[in-house]
Amino acid sequence: MASFDLDSFLGPQVARVETLLRERMDRLVPAGTPPKLAEAMRYSLMAGGKRLRPVLCLTFADLVARASNASAVAGDAACALEYVHTYSLVHDDLPAMDDDDYRRGRPTNHKVYGEAMAILAGDALLTEAFTLVASGPEPVRAALCRELAVGSGAAGMVGGQVLDIAEDRPAALDYLLRLHRLKTGALIRAACRMGVVAAGGDADSLARADSYGDAVGLAFQIADDVLDVTATPEQLGKPSGADAAAGRFTFPAVVGLEASKKLAQDKVAEAISAVRPLEGADGPLAALARYTVERKS
Amino acid sequence: MASFDLDSFLGPQVARVETLLRERMDRLVPAGTPPKLAEAMRYSLMAGGKRLRPVLCLTFADLVARASNASAVAGDAACALEYVHTYSLVHDDLPAMDDDDYRRGRPTNHKVYGEAMAILAGDALLTEAFTLVASGPEPVRAALCRELAVGSGAAGMVGGQVLDIAEDRPAALDYLLRLHRLKTGALIRAACRMGVVAAGGDADSLARADSYGDAVGLAFQIADDVLDVTATPEQLGKPSGADAAAGRFTFPAVVGLEASKKLAQDKVAEAISAVRPLEGADGPLAALARYTVERKS
Repeated sequence: MASFDLDSFLGPQVARVETLLRERMDRLVPAGTPPKLAEAMRYSLMAGGKRLRPVLCLTFADLVARASNASAVAGDAACALEYVHTYSLVHDDLPAMDDDDYRRGRPTNHKVYGEAMAILAGDALLTEAFTLVASGPEPVRAALCRELAVGSGAAGMVGGQVLDIAEDRPAALDYLLRLHRLKTGALIRAACRMGVVAAGGDADSLARADSYGDAVGLAFQIADDVLDVTATPEQLGKPSGADAAAGRFTFPAVVGLEASKKLAQDKVAEAISAVRPLEGADGPLAALARYTVERKS
Repeated sequence: MASFDLDSFLGPQVARVETLLRERMDRLVPAGTPPKLAEAMRYSLMAGGKRLRPVLCLTFADLVARASNASAVAGDAACALEYVHTYSLVHDDLPAMDDDDYRRGRPTNHKVYGEAMAILAGDALLTEAFTLVASGPEPVRAALCRELAVGSGAAGMVGGQVLDIAEDRPAALDYLLRLHRLKTGALIRAACRMGVVAAGGDADSLARADSYGDAVGLAFQIADDVLDVTATPEQLGKPSGADAAAGRFTFPAVVGLEASKKLAQDKVAEAISAVRPLEGADGPLAALARYTVERKS
């Protein structure tokens, strides 16, 4: 059904993100940053990964670009999103949280640099995301800071992590949806919205980016839970079945594997329908939405 | 020598900060924030304290006020500074860092809410500081985000904490000065600068705020180290002599108690000289500078 060649699209987009991240390496760690802190920040930021949030941000920016300097601003926004995503992984992996030893096939930040440094490297990645987005003359910079902070804050990503570690969480679908709308969805929504804001898009585009981000964010998290059941350790870069072994609260655990797959597919359809007026019948955003559930890791 | 009545000034200023913080309580924890997270954030934010950073920010803003709406913007900046300062205390107190059980006479955040929640409450306080500063139509919002991020980031407060926990730190004055210029000084400098930026002050005022903040920040930290040696547990709200007992790297440990007191006094004189053209011979900033070394806790 889909004829859009996602691999041909994603390869260059991910390479573009890697280049943008490398170009901003001296802004990630401003002059005066202790070398060990700089090393710990870079270790987790440059560990690869899907770069989904920056790619979504850049794709939306390209699609609605009106301002001539949208590209530099969108590049900053894309990198800031990856800084924030990386900080959240570093903190989530800590012994006091998920206590994970491996991430993307490598030892987690605190296994290499120690717990104190991992906490601080996360704090610094979060903070430098705002330095990056706030710097420069562009009038949308404050709006971008706000989108990033709202997506990653107490009623966004951090709030979601709190719901995830709560001991009294009910094994109910609505709680799980709320949890992931915050934990994963809020920053993915912010990524889509920031692309539109960086490129000077209109209110309709912003609303469509919001709907798309919400649906794709949920699809992505449901697919993550499904992959933990169905993928091999080689595909994941970490042991599979870890969620079930830890008794974690996942979509397959709450509604079953088949219903989880169906729910993810419904969300993909919602996402595609939201962006059809922006990109037509068969564009990169639709392909990215399908990719969130069709990926193998 | 000093005739400015600091107590009459500070009492209402601290009360003003408490009011500003309370007025923004629903913005600290936006709708959708998990209640337990909101509670943990408020617990540390509303634990009292000297509110030095917000008071500095507001004092500079009042002094250079040009924009008619400077007051609301400066209020947001002042509160954001206290959110960031509070997050840094919550993370610094963690078992992986300073492992402190008490702060301001009360159990530390992780002793009450657990380590995971304390990490996340700190993350959320930092992030919501940016939501607060970035929200609103004021054109200086992005500049304020930048000042806040630079002051609290990898080459600012977080970098200073990294230097403080480093195992191979030399017992040398220049390292200690660099450490505290980052760990305490950078955010105090940001507080002074943000007051000027919020109020639309000129480049000369900004440079004076910068010099004053740098000198006061150092004086404040040196005085903290001195107080740990000279104050009673009742004055500190925690055991005194804790730094020495832990073998911590302090100004008295490196250059001795009397030289530390002299250095603090020199910094106070520098600070007073920097702001004299702004406030005259005997204003609140000079009194605040003197207070940093004359306080008893």
